[in-house]
Amino acid sequence: MTLRVAFLGYRFMGTAHANALARLPMFFPDAPETRRQVLIGRDESALTEAADRLGFAETATGWREVVDEVDVFYDLAPNYLHADPAIAALDADAHVLCEKPLAHTLDDAERMAAAAADSDATAAVAFNYRFLPAVARAKYLVETGELGEIRAFRGRYLQDWLADPTAPWSWRTDADLAGSGALGDLGAHTLDLARYLVGDVARVSGYTRTFVDERPDPEGDGTQPVTVDDAFTAQLAFENGATGTVEASRVAPGRKNDHRIELDGTDGALRWSLERPNELLVRRAGARGFERELVTDPDDPYVDHWWPPGHVLGWEHSVVHENAEFLTAAVAGESHDPDFQAGLAVQRLLDAIQRADANGRWIEC
Amino acid sequence: MTLRVAFLGYRFMGTAHANALARLPMFFPDAPETRRQVLIGRDESALTEAADRLGFAETATGWREVVDEVDVFYDLAPNYLHADPAIAALDADAHVLCEKPLAHTLDDAERMAAAAADSDATAAVAFNYRFLPAVARAKYLVETGELGEIRAFRGRYLQDWLADPTAPWSWRTDADLAGSGALGDLGAHTLDLARYLVGDVARVSGYTRTFVDERPDPEGDGTQPVTVDDAFTAQLAFENGATGTVEASRVAPGRKNDHRIELDGTDGALRWSLERPNELLVRRAGARGFERELVTDPDDPYVDHWWPPGHVLGWEHSVVHENAEFLTAAVAGESHDPDFQAGLAVQRLLDAIQRADANGRWIEC
Amino acid sequence: MTLRVAFLGYRFMGTAHANALARLPMFFPDAPETRRQVLIGRDESALTEAADRLGFAETATGWREVVDEVDVFYDLAPNYLHADPAIAALDADAHVLCEKPLAHTLDDAERMAAAAADSDATAAVAFNYRFLPAVARAKYLVETGELGEIRAFRGRYLQDWLADPTAPWSWRTDADLAGSGALGDLGAHTLDLARYLVGDVARVSGYTRTFVDERPDPEGDGTQPVTVDDAFTAQLAFENGATGTVEASRVAPGRKNDHRIELDGTDGALRWSLERPNELLVRRAGARGFERELVTDPDDPYVDHWWPPGHVLGWEHSVVHENAEFLTAAVAGESHDPDFQAGLAVQRLLDAIQRADANGRWIEC
Amino acid sequence: MTLRVAFLGYRFMGTAHANALARLPMFFPDAPETRRQVLIGRDESALTEAADRLGFAETATGWREVVDEVDVFYDLAPNYLHADPAIAALDADAHVLCEKPLAHTLDDAERMAAAAADSDATAAVAFNYRFLPAVARAKYLVETGELGEIRAFRGRYLQDWLADPTAPWSWRTDADLAGSGALGDLGAHTLDLARYLVGDVARVSGYTRTFVDERPDPEGDGTQPVTVDDAFTAQLAFENGATGTVEASRVAPGRKNDHRIELDGTDGALRWSLERPNELLVRRAGARGFERELVTDPDDPYVDHWWPPGHVLGWEHSVVHENAEFLTAAVAGESHDPDFQAGLAVQRLLDAIQRADANGRWIEC
Repeated sequence: MTLRVAFLGYRFMGTAHANALARLPMFFPDAPETRRQVLIGRDESALTEAADRLGFAETATGWREVVDEVDVFYDLAPNYLHADPAIAALDADAHVLCEKPLAHTLDDAERMAAAAADSDATAAVAFNYRFLPAVARAKYLVETGELGEIRAFRGRYLQDWLADPTAPWSWRTDADLAGSGALGDLGAHTLDLARYLVGDVARVSGYTRTFVDERPDPEGDGTQPVTVDDAFTAQLAFENGATGTVEASRVAPGRKNDHRIELDGTDGALRWSLERPNELLVRRAGARGFERELVTDPDDPYVDHWWPPGHVLGWEHSVVHENAEFLTAAVAGESHDPDFQAGLAVQRLLDAIQRADANGRWIEC
Repeated sequence: MTLRVAFLGYRFMGTAHANALARLPMFFPDAPETRRQVLIGRDESALTEAADRLGFAETATGWREVVDEVDVFYDLAPNYLHADPAIAALDADAHVLCEKPLAHTLDDAERMAAAAADSDATAAVAFNYRFLPAVARAKYLVETGELGEIRAFRGRYLQDWLADPTAPWSWRTDADLAGSGALGDLGAHTLDLARYLVGDVARVSGYTRTFVDERPDPEGDGTQPVTVDDAFTAQLAFENGATGTVEASRVAPGRKNDHRIELDGTDGALRWSLERPNELLVRRAGARGFERELVTDPDDPYVDHWWPPGHVLGWEHSVVHENAEFLTAAVAGESHDPDFQAGLAVQRLLDAIQRADANGRWIEC
Repeated sequence: MTLRVAFLGYRFMGTAHANALARLPMFFPDAPETRRQVLIGRDESALTEAADRLGFAETATGWREVVDEVDVFYDLAPNYLHADPAIAALDADAHVLCEKPLAHTLDDAERMAAAAADSDATAAVAFNYRFLPAVARAKYLVETGELGEIRAFRGRYLQDWLADPTAPWSWRTDADLAGSGALGDLGAHTLDLARYLVGDVARVSGYTRTFVDERPDPEGDGTQPVTVDDAFTAQLAFENGATGTVEASRVAPGRKNDHRIELDGTDGALRWSLERPNELLVRRAGARGFERELVTDPDDPYVDHWWPPGHVLGWEHSVVHENAEFLTAAVAGESHDPDFQAGLAVQRLLDAIQRADANGRWIEC
Repeated sequence: MTLRVAFLGYRFMGTAHANALARLPMFFPDAPETRRQVLIGRDESALTEAADRLGFAETATGWREVVDEVDVFYDLAPNYLHADPAIAALDADAHVLCEKPLAHTLDDAERMAAAAADSDATAAVAFNYRFLPAVARAKYLVETGELGEIRAFRGRYLQDWLADPTAPWSWRTDADLAGSGALGDLGAHTLDLARYLVGDVARVSGYTRTFVDERPDPEGDGTQPVTVDDAFTAQLAFENGATGTVEASRVAPGRKNDHRIELDGTDGALRWSLERPNELLVRRAGARGFERELVTDPDDPYVDHWWPPGHVLGWEHSVVHENAEFLTAAVAGESHDPDFQAGLAVQRLLDAIQRADANGRWIEC
């Protein structure tokens, strides 16, 4: 059976997921077959061009009529457009992959998680960095006890595309459309990895800052107010006793996509950065320092699908692997990890960090 | 017009080029359209599986009958199978992309270059690293004079897959099939970049070594003799007066695909490694040290076809870009750079290094 | 005039400061002349050996009788022995250099700062990292506006010497003797650099953890309770609006002395680590990435006293520079920066972080 | 007994060795006691200032009258002034430490080695990098077989202080005074480490280049010809079958003191750079990649004399350790490693590289 797929959204992540679907037959021949059936958007001419380029058979300008006609629904729209389409798709028993963060409000995220729980379909939230070989290997090293008990997590995600105060306003800088700024856009990834690699968070402290409070209107002469954070910091207290610090910024000069994760355990430690996604620094028990692993060996996660050792993968491969996992789970009637519950758990942390900031105190999660 | 394409060979580089062709429509929509028509190999069952996976319409067990039926011929076979098929294809006016090194002997390379000169078709040799954004940017910085006059080139290409003496014999360890070992397999890339970035080489000195002189026969119980080098070193004297050192090894523990290039100029300097292919270290005129550029900005070579800044590309993208350039040149009736003359120039250096080693003296090129 | 100097304490920092005094004549000939007059300690035989090795003319087993007899008093004793000796020395008009943190309690620190304010002598707290060339250069770049307005500070100080649960109890793991653990031992340095490079802190949030709650008694068979933190994290809100995160650990496997500082500004950014103390990573306005500066040029701070470019300095040079500055200020009747007020300011942050942790809320500073 | 010491030369290396002698009592209390007795130079006023600063009791403007009056003679003069003073000192039974390279001609080096062989005194050549903890540890790892049999050596030593064509002429750019340029100044260190870590060299190939052939006369308005190399490259064939490449430049922009050494063995590999002298990258048998060791642990060579782990040492400590070893050997009547034979062996390589260049062929050593 070939799965009929619809995408809501066709820009950056639309291309990334279309590319993933296009590559599965050659590199993951055991993954389910898919047909890119319907591409959904509002601007008809852009939509037509995108559908042609991304290999979709049809276009539609509304999502409501589509959810009943496809087997799989990808919600790649701005955050405020996550809940209703995703819930409708799940209600129609379509499998759903939703971009992160799960929603722009905690209420929406809860509604989505409830809909997922009520549906037989598979619901996935797109925390794609879990599917990079080096991150998957980090998880393996934690699970197999190489590091011992985890005592500290450090995560930060730094970009600089908003460092220029003349960078234009977009939905990503608007609270009503995005929910939050660096927090939900970047921090959601980091918080997911914190939960994935360490476990549940008991309490958080937060601080958010908006440095540039208005930006040029992309469709006019004036400016629009920026109503989300440019940067945030947070402390985490994990349930297992580990400490955590998390930080993100879209105004950090010289950082293009610097998502760094560090773990300290009783026996060992790990370090990783998205700017060098194939490298994992591992301090093993009894070793003097960190060993640089190039995670491109045939027995590393996902690597046997690709190239010989040392022929490094790129960012986009995380999305290919994510799609292979999601579609395989969907066809098998299984849940995908991370699912909407995982998305909700991160949303609760996003919300708690904002409340902790607003109240000047730690918030129980 | 859709170009009908045949591949001779379907393993590592077969997959890499099939992937490249499959990705062009989405990411390089202006590149010529292609149809993967015929996959050529000897083992019928493996061939059928590969054709299915790589998206080829047909298979064939001999190349002679295919060259007349396609527009483009990819020679991805072991080195000793480069000359005759490529020449036949060119004689049939098929465009040819041939894997590196151009041939297993200098004689073959000369015949191939002559055939290319006599043909109206486009002949390309697959020095794919030229097409990584960071390497293309290095070329740009040299061409625009950022570094001043080049005084020194350092290149080394280190791998460790033959460090284990029980790694099996293959065509890559046999002089009759491969021509040379680390020299032609890895050094050919480095020597091409030396010529690309610095210019013609006037003289070479060489040294080659075989550390493991027999390896297990993959098809039997015994061993086969290793008749190629495991490692080589060379000095270059460029025509412009620059010094050069080039080195490669397939027995360098801990190096997976460590192809490093350094350039010193009168005003600046460059450093690059294939294990971090998206990074270029640039020492600009007047600066104190090297600046790390993540070559993922929209105006960097090829990058606007892909993702936002910081979303790094992998090894395989070099092959995608190479194919876009080659096919575009082919349809336009233009030559591709690097062409068979460039492949021949490198082959002459490979041959000169071997003769320099054999004779214990510098050889004029 | 030759300054007569007394040291209270003769272990690690005693050796470091004795070395500094011994090196000034050759490398800082303009610095005041000193005589190592009295070495103070309790264990007479160890004291005699140390005085001989460190070049002291005399020994004493109590500090009270010494403070009137010397011109300069170095308090290098455990934290609980900072206040009384330092105050007595200042009251006797001896110049005082006190190791960090200034005291083991905020009360003591306040008494010390008051004594310093009442004394004509120079009082210095030993935040020696300010005097590394790379850190001094970082300060220069901030002051001259190269980075623009500072928006973010990240500091962490990681060591692993207590990762082993059998590492023995010492005064450094006892709250009555040390005041705090990683917080005061390591975090004090980081917080001083935060104030030095960014400015005053308005509010803090804190979290402290003790992972190993008892350790072998070094003088017996049993164990002693650990009453200080093994690790802490904190968020800072600077008065100028910048965000800050600070973290320290003595149980971070693989980190020997990894004190990292990062600054983001509106125009540029900085990165530095104590494990590579001579290197400063600078992202300049308009640049693509970080430039690695080896801060060993003749016009870099302090460097002209030493070696040609590239002949790197070590950790101990920070202490030599600190002593040159302190003694020069003392003889000139000027204050040293950082003085006891700066030490008190850091102590207030240490105290605030502990209270923030205890109360689960941000504390105004 | 206190050894009376004379220095010929008081600039860079004069300061480095005076510093070493001054530090031994505190950090190497078991090393022999020394008195800085006579400082020898030609410019009386500079000499008097230097003697005062460096702690010498007397000065002299000629070396002949001094060699009989001291126990130890340090030849820190320009290369052409190595042979006669060192030989005279050895003939007078004074122990000699001579800066590298041993001489400016092979003849002189041979005379020096003969004099050392005939003398009961200890003769040392100052290849100080052997005495950095990380390099000494590299030697240990080789000796204990951690790397297996060595198959490849890579060394390069890059600086940029002559990249500026207006950098003045000095004895270091004159063949009559220095013998060679980057080759003897920098390459001598690298070649010594090659012999130290791998073993004897059977054959060499060489290439030398002078890019700037005249430089401003520091004492006049005109220029002086540059008669030494700005850069060289060489290939080595070791007697044990290993390959080697060696390269040095004083015109490599952005490199301040970048002396890099790499070793590949059958089982493991090493990497080290002088710009990060405390770090050793080790690829152990069976490991995936290189582990970064911070060579500051108490059981690392020389480290127990200094600071706790992670408190890094600088360049100058190599000279302190070298002096401790040399003086200890001298008093014990033992030879120092490296001795004049080792200096001569390197001089033969320098000479062979020049002849290999001149003759365009490999030279047996």
